[in-house]
Amino acid sequence: MCEASVYTVRDGERNLVMENVVSIRPEGEKVILVDIFGDQKVLAAKIEKVDLLEHEVILCSG
Amino acid sequence: MCEASVYTVRDGERNLVMENVVSIRPEGEKVILVDIFGDQKVLAAKIEKVDLLEHEVILCSG
Repeated sequence: MCEASVYTVRDGERNLVMENVVSIRPEGEKVILVDIFGDQKVLAAKIEKVDLLEHEVILCSG
Repeated sequence: MCEASVYTVRDGERNLVMENVVSIRPEGEKVILVDIFGDQKVLAAKIEKVDLLEHEVILCSG
């Protein structure tokens, strides 16, 4: 499986916001995350980088 | 491995732009793609959706 961990970075500090994420969808000023269980999180953030080797998605907020 | 195929969608038509992509990074009005070989493509587009179950990244352009 190829799900990713999603982190936000604010002031250089990285925070894990969701694991096992399978869908990342920007929507205006927000990003909608969905994990393998179908749980959803909506964050005021932008995608900074999707790294499929590290299974990481970095969002920037603030 | 978890690399993805990247497509652009314009006027509802999907076009494959790069396979085996491991890094997707928005940069202003562009998106920078890097594949497993280190090859890079820069497209005037935005990320519409990252689908890690389907190993697909959809960009919208135009």
